[in-house]
Amino acid sequence: MSTYDTFTEDLKRIAALGSISGLLEWDEQVNLPPESADYRARQSSAMSELVHREATRSQVGEWLAELKEDTSLDLDQQLVVSEAGKEYDRLTKIPADFVSRKAELTSLAFHAWGKARADNDFASYAPYLERNLELAKEEASYLGCADDPYDYWIDRFDPGMDATSIQRIFKGLKDELVPLVRQILDSSIKANTDCMKDFPVDRQEAFLREVTERLGFNYRRGRIDRSLHPFCSGNAFDTRMTTRFFKDNPLDSLFSSIHETGHGLYEQGLPHEHIGTALGEAAGMAVHESQSRLWENQVARSPEFWKFWEPVYRETFDQQLSGVSSHDFYLAVNSVALNPIRVDSDEVTYNLHILLRFELEKALFEGSLAVSDLPEEWNRLSEQIVGLRPRNDSEGVLQDVHWSGAAFGYFPSYCLGNLLAAQLWYALLEQVPSVPEEMAKGNFSPVLDWLRTNVHQHGRRRFALELSKEVTGQDLSHVSLIRYLRERYLPLYSS
Amino acid sequence: MSTYDTFTEDLKRIAALGSISGLLEWDEQVNLPPESADYRARQSSAMSELVHREATRSQVGEWLAELKEDTSLDLDQQLVVSEAGKEYDRLTKIPADFVSRKAELTSLAFHAWGKARADNDFASYAPYLERNLELAKEEASYLGCADDPYDYWIDRFDPGMDATSIQRIFKGLKDELVPLVRQILDSSIKANTDCMKDFPVDRQEAFLREVTERLGFNYRRGRIDRSLHPFCSGNAFDTRMTTRFFKDNPLDSLFSSIHETGHGLYEQGLPHEHIGTALGEAAGMAVHESQSRLWENQVARSPEFWKFWEPVYRETFDQQLSGVSSHDFYLAVNSVALNPIRVDSDEVTYNLHILLRFELEKALFEGSLAVSDLPEEWNRLSEQIVGLRPRNDSEGVLQDVHWSGAAFGYFPSYCLGNLLAAQLWYALLEQVPSVPEEMAKGNFSPVLDWLRTNVHQHGRRRFALELSKEVTGQDLSHVSLIRYLRERYLPLYSS
Repeated sequence: MSTYDTFTEDLKRIAALGSISGLLEWDEQVNLPPESADYRARQSSAMSELVHREATRSQVGEWLAELKEDTSLDLDQQLVVSEAGKEYDRLTKIPADFVSRKAELTSLAFHAWGKARADNDFASYAPYLERNLELAKEEASYLGCADDPYDYWIDRFDPGMDATSIQRIFKGLKDELVPLVRQILDSSIKANTDCMKDFPVDRQEAFLREVTERLGFNYRRGRIDRSLHPFCSGNAFDTRMTTRFFKDNPLDSLFSSIHETGHGLYEQGLPHEHIGTALGEAAGMAVHESQSRLWENQVARSPEFWKFWEPVYRETFDQQLSGVSSHDFYLAVNSVALNPIRVDSDEVTYNLHILLRFELEKALFEGSLAVSDLPEEWNRLSEQIVGLRPRNDSEGVLQDVHWSGAAFGYFPSYCLGNLLAAQLWYALLEQVPSVPEEMAKGNFSPVLDWLRTNVHQHGRRRFALELSKEVTGQDLSHVSLIRYLRERYLPLYSS
Repeated sequence: MSTYDTFTEDLKRIAALGSISGLLEWDEQVNLPPESADYRARQSSAMSELVHREATRSQVGEWLAELKEDTSLDLDQQLVVSEAGKEYDRLTKIPADFVSRKAELTSLAFHAWGKARADNDFASYAPYLERNLELAKEEASYLGCADDPYDYWIDRFDPGMDATSIQRIFKGLKDELVPLVRQILDSSIKANTDCMKDFPVDRQEAFLREVTERLGFNYRRGRIDRSLHPFCSGNAFDTRMTTRFFKDNPLDSLFSSIHETGHGLYEQGLPHEHIGTALGEAAGMAVHESQSRLWENQVARSPEFWKFWEPVYRETFDQQLSGVSSHDFYLAVNSVALNPIRVDSDEVTYNLHILLRFELEKALFEGSLAVSDLPEEWNRLSEQIVGLRPRNDSEGVLQDVHWSGAAFGYFPSYCLGNLLAAQLWYALLEQVPSVPEEMAKGNFSPVLDWLRTNVHQHGRRRFALELSKEVTGQDLSHVSLIRYLRERYLPLYSS
């Protein structure tokens, strides 16, 4: 075997080991008995330690050194080597004692955050957040990014992206989105979601199973289970999604399942033979999010989608929907309302929450904002950008888990994913004009086929910026998302 | 930290890693999507390889060498060291290429067995079985047991046990059990299990959950799920049982769940702080089986058990049981009938199946029986010992999976477990005479407390033979089992 083949076999083996860590987490969220958490932590940490040791063997470094000089490698192979090298650098340059210190401190911060949120007491959490910020900067410094730690973190989640590019993109978005939201909210037409009551959970489950299967999720290599918060984990060989059910909020479960299905379809579409290498891995969080959002929003909130599914839905829930007109139902599916909580927000107002967080993260990293001033700045900017002032810090600066784990620079990916989804959507409609018509007949394979060809099969060959340029011919920007939101929401909310 | 402490910490870490392999298997049986099996095999083999590597590090050998000379260790610590040393020897003396060759060949044999059983074609499987026998002998030879390979395998599952001891014990059992079975079968009284029809699965599930919880299974550190074949895996920190449901055979699920609960209670009763060392591990398969059997048979087929549970059972299944008298129901719980299949046999005839298999395994290892003659010898001995001749090889020599995995010497443990269960039961009744009365009130904690004190908390301090002697004052023998079967079944089947 060539060094390249030996090396990629080893990458795949390490990925298989890593996927076991993933399964431990899935099982923790889905199955773990309540008092088994301590032991699970022990299993997970023993496993992570082993995977880390395997991935940082000096043998790996030797292979990398040899392959970086190997001029016979083609472009794909060079990508595999350079991406693996980047990961190897990250794993070997960050000192082991920093890794365990960070794990310990973020675990403390996570618990402090939970308590602070419950008690509406930001001050008790502030020292932890300050330390997390320092940890994030320290980690960046090990990778030679002491001068631009925020860029380091953004690049971690979306390679090739940085704060300057995001600021430019978000500026355009903010200028158009803020007035659009006002326009929709000022409408006298209001969606009524209170009509959705008493939907039996077993029937919700059967319906979403039918929907997600028809969208293309391969249940022969995947499952859907229940957990407190929906997520998607695993890889193309065994993709595991979760959802949760509320009797009086059936759309939550349905749309979050379709969202996770979007993630799952991406994973299932990555080239199986390359899983564990850059050719078989997702191209960053924005691209991943573009996939979940495209299915959840562009597809599943469309009139064509519901043209096909509404009769099935009504048959499943005849009693519950008997007094609800088609128009009111479709309006409920596309309800828009300001919500102080990001994760409870609709697709129109959601992005405002991200603009807010990006401004704050940037200021924190630049040093122009002190952690102690964060709650007030959150509230001030929230009023300005989102359009409401949280009633308290629990509903404001304390609402998200991310910072408690020192995960900075992650929020922008959500919004970039929304932008990319809309951009991909219009490219798809242009290239395959029959998509709406096919969806109305319950045929979603033209959508999936196009995503497979243009996104999934490429692994990490194209990150968000290149992908956008190559597939849609346009730079990543706010233009398509604004167009999409206008086209979908203005007709609904114009009296 | 002392070398002993460092060493046992390492044993516990390796046990935690091993428990991850266990979880992968559990997940495979309970959750795995149908086409994810290949990847799971890859994950499992990558994991086993890592665990093997960790457990055979030269560092472990150095610790062992030092600790074997350490005269300051107490008896418990010496046990931990000697048991760990035995395992280290086994892992290091068996060559890696033999391990992978065996894994590959037994995997082929497993598939050949499945096909042969489906096709009733022993001849196609015979070459695989011959090779498995050779593999078993080869493995024994690496551990210095080339002269008595069958003893090696028996000792693997039940330390301290050998073919000679088993033969002596089984001789006594056969002499008394064969006529007892005839006596019961000759009775004009027959149990009627056909009356148990149409038991809704969700109610079966709720009932067995209530039963197993009251027996003492800790669901805060365990679960029960569904799988094709019932089993119990995990450890005291997270014990996972499975069962299966048949609408028309509710007793199958109930008793197999109680059986697995017996295994689970044993695991949950092992000293948590010692898990991963000999002080926190089960004392062999016979002892494990004694625990499952004691709960399944001595406890759950007793009149006192049903005095408490029958009203609840009737309330749960009022319609299904409306035409069934208490006497007929209790007779169904204690039904006795010859069955060619071991796993479908009742507790009276079950042991005959083991006597048969022991005779055959012994002859195979001694060389007095050729694999090609096995089917005929199976049928001949089956007629003589069990009392019926299988209609074909699928119902005869091909019925069990064990030999296809080169697992010889395992069958005797099932019967030894039955003997030990009966022996423990009479010791318990003598020491805690209120047990039947308490069971009739639904209080099973005197049983569990006694097992915790006399069996569970000792880990591997006492293997089956010593345990029997120390706890019951008697050598392990057929006496108690025969007494128990007579006392339970003769009154029921005497007209």
